[in-house]
Amino acid sequence: MRRKITVLPGDGIGKEVTRGAIEILEAVAERYGHEFEFQYGEIGGTAIDNSGTPLPDETIELCKSSDAVLLGAVGGPKWDNQPSHLRPERGLLAIRKQLNLYANLRPISYFSSLAESSPLRKEIIEEVDFVIVRELTGGLYFGKPSERTTHEGKEAVVDTLFYQKDEIKRIIELAFELASKRKKRVTSVDKANVLESSRLWRETAEEVAAHYPEVELEHMLVDNAAMQLIRNPRQFDVMVTENMFGDILSDEASVLTGSLGMLPSASLSTEGPNLFEPIHGSAPDIAGKNIANPIAMILSAASMLRLSFGLEEEAEAVEKAVKDTLDSGARTGDIAGGQTSTLTTKEMIAEIKGAI
Amino acid sequence: MRRKITVLPGDGIGKEVTRGAIEILEAVAERYGHEFEFQYGEIGGTAIDNSGTPLPDETIELCKSSDAVLLGAVGGPKWDNQPSHLRPERGLLAIRKQLNLYANLRPISYFSSLAESSPLRKEIIEEVDFVIVRELTGGLYFGKPSERTTHEGKEAVVDTLFYQKDEIKRIIELAFELASKRKKRVTSVDKANVLESSRLWRETAEEVAAHYPEVELEHMLVDNAAMQLIRNPRQFDVMVTENMFGDILSDEASVLTGSLGMLPSASLSTEGPNLFEPIHGSAPDIAGKNIANPIAMILSAASMLRLSFGLEEEAEAVEKAVKDTLDSGARTGDIAGGQTSTLTTKEMIAEIKGAI
Ligand SMILES: CC(C)[C@H](C(=O)O)[C@@H](O)C(=O)O
Ligand SMILES: CC(C)[C@H](C(=O)O)[C@@H](O)C(=O)O
Repeated sequence: MRRKITVLPGDGIGKEVTRGAIEILEAVAERYGHEFEFQYGEIGGTAIDNSGTPLPDETIELCKSSDAVLLGAVGGPKWDNQPSHLRPERGLLAIRKQLNLYANLRPISYFSSLAESSPLRKEIIEEVDFVIVRELTGGLYFGKPSERTTHEGKEAVVDTLFYQKDEIKRIIELAFELASKRKKRVTSVDKANVLESSRLWRETAEEVAAHYPEVELEHMLVDNAAMQLIRNPRQFDVMVTENMFGDILSDEASVLTGSLGMLPSASLSTEGPNLFEPIHGSAPDIAGKNIANPIAMILSAASMLRLSFGLEEEAEAVEKAVKDTLDSGARTGDIAGGQTSTLTTKEMIAEIKGAI
Repeated sequence: MRRKITVLPGDGIGKEVTRGAIEILEAVAERYGHEFEFQYGEIGGTAIDNSGTPLPDETIELCKSSDAVLLGAVGGPKWDNQPSHLRPERGLLAIRKQLNLYANLRPISYFSSLAESSPLRKEIIEEVDFVIVRELTGGLYFGKPSERTTHEGKEAVVDTLFYQKDEIKRIIELAFELASKRKKRVTSVDKANVLESSRLWRETAEEVAAHYPEVELEHMLVDNAAMQLIRNPRQFDVMVTENMFGDILSDEASVLTGSLGMLPSASLSTEGPNLFEPIHGSAPDIAGKNIANPIAMILSAASMLRLSFGLEEEAEAVEKAVKDTLDSGARTGDIAGGQTSTLTTKEMIAEIKGAI
């Protein structure tokens, strides 16, 4: 198989971890006889520094001309005081809109070898295995108006939570599709006791559910979901929710198993290439030190093999290499628990590569 | 001191736990020579059944004619399929608006005797002690439009996140006032990288902070806050945020210490009586069984003594009675951990009363 992959390292540890993903993909290509061509683009702070905008047009063009996109991470204190259109995160929001990345998938999984790094008790997180499906291009993120205004002569401000029913439907359908290949349970999270958009969300979920009689649908209020994720995360299989709720809940969920540096994500497009990135940020404090954990990025590359290229066997090979490497005791600093001997980023990459 | 207290038992275990608070307040009145007059009103499902509306006008009048309001809990499956204006929770939203309850205070505190009930490791939650200050009458909860609409001929829906700057200012000021009497740290939570309302929120927080040079202000993005609450809850002193973020984060925070049945809340009014209620819900599954934990409601009554009546000594006496009762090993089922012998609601109330 021949595929063209756009790599957007971004800022901070983004450069180090994307390098890891590329090395692993090269090993996969060699072992399975594929050809992966890599092309590089800029996004985030680096793009602001070099081109004056967090998402240059060339980057969009590069992405559109490729079969999949790998993104490292964006942001850093250097750009924290920029006006908002010149902030690295704007690049993220813009690429989602430009590539129509309507669905963000975040698997939350338990690694038994890392139980010690979790803030939760082992009994609570053992065997946790669910996916959060977050709507990524609607809601409060892009609704208009979003502006300063006045009310009875006084300063005020407004943001808008807007959804088309079709947008709600397609993300919920995706959740049902996923669940039908998993444990057949969808938890749809909303705030239907307050928001009209949540009531439409709930109705739409019911309509979609009618087409999946084998999948069980449960509605959960967002405040309750925030509690249940901590009290009993094992109850979930596929959780689906709107953009802002998904932002909050998926970050909450990402720390449950103590393996933030291990969690990949996939953003699916309505038509063009999908985008794969780790959940963690650019970690400016450890950037360039060769100590970042490359596993989330490597597992994001595995997701790409599976979801964009249909290479299930290859994806599993990467995932197994990661698991074997961890089982052998290899650890970067963030997941070391009490263990004192740790690997550098490059050493971890080499270990995983060796295991493929 | 003479004070008139409106009691709104509401639904489910609301009736059982408010009875507990009243007994404790009567014991306090006797010991300290106060006179508390109790008057009773309806709210929630019970009000719907008896008067056809979740918040009858008489209830509002009762509240306004009193010095403070104690609320049990509202809601239950019986009313789950009602049209939305006839849902018990509407009573909650309406009473907030009618009594101008602009600030919801939720202390999150660690009870060493209950460490076993927490989903988190002891090292993480030990000594946790912070307050979440949630804005309660603005944001997405009351913004207009909140309605079905069409967009390019297709079904769509809109909700509105609206704030006046004055509303933001008064809640942030309250947070600074609280922090100046505590550990002098305010964490202001927003989503300033996406929402215009959050950018105004952040600016306003900076303005308020200028008047409190002894209090440290930190801004935190809501997704990060959702993570930090689990990873390191000890870092917080006073967290302040807007209505919807506060709804989600305060429920998340409420399960950290494993003592949901122990957590009180206070809702402060701009002018009229304040309202005090436990954080937990109406727990219809255990209602009427005399097994609910009355402590959150009793601690809410203690907050009332402190915040509405200025009776600090009396408030502390109630809090100490609760602590001593727990230290003696008394437990209701929800906080029993491994312990097999548990008390009924009435027995727990009697224990605490005895300790006053
Ligand atoms: C950086 C920010 C705009 C972004 C979001 O809120 O979507 C981030 O938190 C994420 O989850 O990818
Ligand atoms: C019942 C509901 C409307 C309410 C809210 O969202 O404010 C509840 O969750 C709360 O936190 O008191």
